[in-house]
Amino acid sequence: MDFPWPTVGTPLADVLTPMPVIDENRLAANIARAQDYLTAHGLPFRPHIKTHKIPAVAQQQIDAGAIGINCQKVTEAEVFADAGFDDILITYNVLGAARVARLKALNERVATLRVVADNPTTISGLAQAFSDGKPLEVLVECDTGAGRCGVQTPEAAVALAQLINDADGLRFAGVLTYPAVGGAADVEAFLQTTMGLLADLGIDCPVRSNGGSPDLFAAHMVPSATEHRAGTYVYNDRSMVRAGECTADDLAMHVLATVVSRPTPTRAVLDAGSKALTSDLLGFADHGEIVGLPGARIVSLSEEHAVVDLTACTAPLPEVGTQVRVIPNHTCVVTNLFDRMVFHRDGIVTRVIPVAARGTVW
Amino acid sequence: MDFPWPTVGTPLADVLTPMPVIDENRLAANIARAQDYLTAHGLPFRPHIKTHKIPAVAQQQIDAGAIGINCQKVTEAEVFADAGFDDILITYNVLGAARVARLKALNERVATLRVVADNPTTISGLAQAFSDGKPLEVLVECDTGAGRCGVQTPEAAVALAQLINDADGLRFAGVLTYPAVGGAADVEAFLQTTMGLLADLGIDCPVRSNGGSPDLFAAHMVPSATEHRAGTYVYNDRSMVRAGECTADDLAMHVLATVVSRPTPTRAVLDAGSKALTSDLLGFADHGEIVGLPGARIVSLSEEHAVVDLTACTAPLPEVGTQVRVIPNHTCVVTNLFDRMVFHRDGIVTRVIPVAARGTVW
Repeated sequence: MDFPWPTVGTPLADVLTPMPVIDENRLAANIARAQDYLTAHGLPFRPHIKTHKIPAVAQQQIDAGAIGINCQKVTEAEVFADAGFDDILITYNVLGAARVARLKALNERVATLRVVADNPTTISGLAQAFSDGKPLEVLVECDTGAGRCGVQTPEAAVALAQLINDADGLRFAGVLTYPAVGGAADVEAFLQTTMGLLADLGIDCPVRSNGGSPDLFAAHMVPSATEHRAGTYVYNDRSMVRAGECTADDLAMHVLATVVSRPTPTRAVLDAGSKALTSDLLGFADHGEIVGLPGARIVSLSEEHAVVDLTACTAPLPEVGTQVRVIPNHTCVVTNLFDRMVFHRDGIVTRVIPVAARGTVW
Repeated sequence: MDFPWPTVGTPLADVLTPMPVIDENRLAANIARAQDYLTAHGLPFRPHIKTHKIPAVAQQQIDAGAIGINCQKVTEAEVFADAGFDDILITYNVLGAARVARLKALNERVATLRVVADNPTTISGLAQAFSDGKPLEVLVECDTGAGRCGVQTPEAAVALAQLINDADGLRFAGVLTYPAVGGAADVEAFLQTTMGLLADLGIDCPVRSNGGSPDLFAAHMVPSATEHRAGTYVYNDRSMVRAGECTADDLAMHVLATVVSRPTPTRAVLDAGSKALTSDLLGFADHGEIVGLPGARIVSLSEEHAVVDLTACTAPLPEVGTQVRVIPNHTCVVTNLFDRMVFHRDGIVTRVIPVAARGTVW
C-alpha cells in the first residue's frame, strides 16, 4: 500500500499530521549563511548529511560551496555515492570484514573517500582488505574533550598515524575531532601539538578536520583546522536557538501536529508523539516548543501522543482539530523517522522526496 | 541501492550492527503466556500492533487466540487490512475530512472496524462522512487516571454516547480506557458507573476495552472489561522487567551492537546510538542494559554512538570489535526505526521481514 503523502502544491494547512516540513527559504538561507561565514574565514566546509539524509539537499550544500560531505555509515555513503557525490568522509571506525569489503568497493568508485580510526583493531582490519587497489585515506580520530571516541593524547594520535602508514593499502591523511561545545582552545592545542610531533617525524598531516553545529560560527577560532563539519545547522532546531547559533527565524524544520483531544481546560493532546518528535531532550525539560502558544509545555510523550500543559499558556487555547507547528528539540532524529521529507515555500508544498539514506543498516 | 540486510541462516555473531533481533522462541512464549492468562480469565485479547508493526506477528497472536488487533493510525490499519485482518480497533480520535474519508473506505472492507472518540468535534467529523453505507462503531475513550486522552467523568462519557447514537451513520459500541499503571480499581469504578448510567438510559454498552502491557497480568482485576489490549508484552523490554511483568528470559528483542572504540580503560563506545535505541528513558537513568556486562552503564547516546561507562563493570571488559547485546529500555520505538526486523532461533536467523506498518504517515 502506498502511504498518502501530501502532493506538491498542497497548502500546509491541508497537510495531514504528524508531519515534519522544511521551509525552502530558510533552508537556503541556512546553507548560505554557514557557507558564507566559513568562506569568509577561508575554511572549507564539509556538511554532515545525518541531518537530512537527502542527496538533493547535499547538492544544495555543494552548490553553495561545500567541498564534500560527511557520512556516519558505510551504507549512507553508498547512497550518496550512487547519487554522484565524489568526496565523502565517513567519521566512523569501520569494523568487520563484510563492512570493510563494502568500504573497499566504495573506495574504488569515489574519487576521495576517507574514514577515521582511533584504535589498532580498526586499522588492522582496514589494512587486511586494502592491500591492493586504490589506497584508503585514514584520519586519526582525537578526543579533544567531548568524551566520545578518539585517542586521548597527541602521542597516541602519532602512534596510530605511524601504524596507518605502515600498512601498504592505507594512507595517513590527517586528524579529526568532534569537540566539546566551547572547546576551540582545546582543539587548537591538541592539533598544534599533534602536528608538531608529526612534523618531527616527517609525517605529513594535510587534513585537520574540526566539527559541530553548536560551535559552527566559532570555527574560525581553530586556525589549525583545514575543514569544518556540521549537520544540524541546515535545518536548525530548538537546541540551536538555545545555543545562540540561530534565531527562531532560522528554523527550517517544524513538525506539523494536530490537537486531537482537549480532555481538560488545561490539557491538550497532539498527534505528534515519540514516533514523530523522538524523546531527545538535549537538556530541555520538555519535548519541543509550540509556535504561537507561549507558556504551553509538551510535558510528556507517548508513541503517538504529546500531552501539553496549557496552565501557563497566555494565548487563546487551541481547540480540537487545530493544526499547530512544533519546533523539535533535535531535528536530526526527526528526519530519521520519516521515509519522505515535505518541503514548502511560503506554506505551499514544493517537494516531497525520499529520505534516501534513512534506514541504512550500518 | 538495496541495503545489506542479513539473510536467513546467518549466525547472529555474523549479523552486522546495530541491529535489533527477535528471539522466535521467546516471542512465541510471550504470545502464549499472555493469551493463556487471559483465556484462563475469560477475557478476550486484542493485541496492539504498535510494538511489531508486522502482519505475520499479528497473525501469530491471532492464531494463539486473539480476537482482533489494535492500531493507532488509519494507515497502520490499512496495512493490516491489506494483510487480511478483519477485526481492527483504531484507538485514536480520527480527525479531518481526508483521514475520515480513508477511514470510511476502510470500514467498507473490514468486517469489524471500531474507532474511539473523546470529544464532539471528532464525532461530528465522523458523522458527516458516515451518513450512508456501513455504519461505524465508535467507542468513547475515558481517562481513568492516566492523564492523556479521554473524557473525565462517566457523565461525560454518556453524553458522548448519546451524541454518537444521534448520528445516523455511527453506532455507540462501548467505552475504552488506557489506564494508569496500577489503576485497576479506578478503571472498574469508572466502568461500573458509566455502565449504570447508560443502562438507566437504555443504551447498550457491549464493549468495555481495557489496556496496557505494564498491567497485563492484572487484567482480571477489572471484571467489567470485555477485552484487554496490550502491545509491549510481545517482545518485552527493560521497562517490562522492571515492572515485574516478565523476566530477562522473556526478553525477545535485543539490539546487537559492536564495541567500536575503547578510548580509555573505563570507556567503551558502541555503534548503537539514538538512531538505533532511541532516547526513550521510561524512568531509567541510562539507555539500556548490556547483557553479560554487569555494572556497565550506557551513560549517553549520540545519533550513532553509545558511550558506556565501565567503571563499575565487574566482567572482563570488551575489546574493540566485540559484539554485545543491548536490552532496550523500550522496544516499541526501536521497531519504529528499522525497515525490516530480523528474527532468529537459537542464534540463527530465521526471518528478515518488512516492518510493514513502519513509516505510516497518519
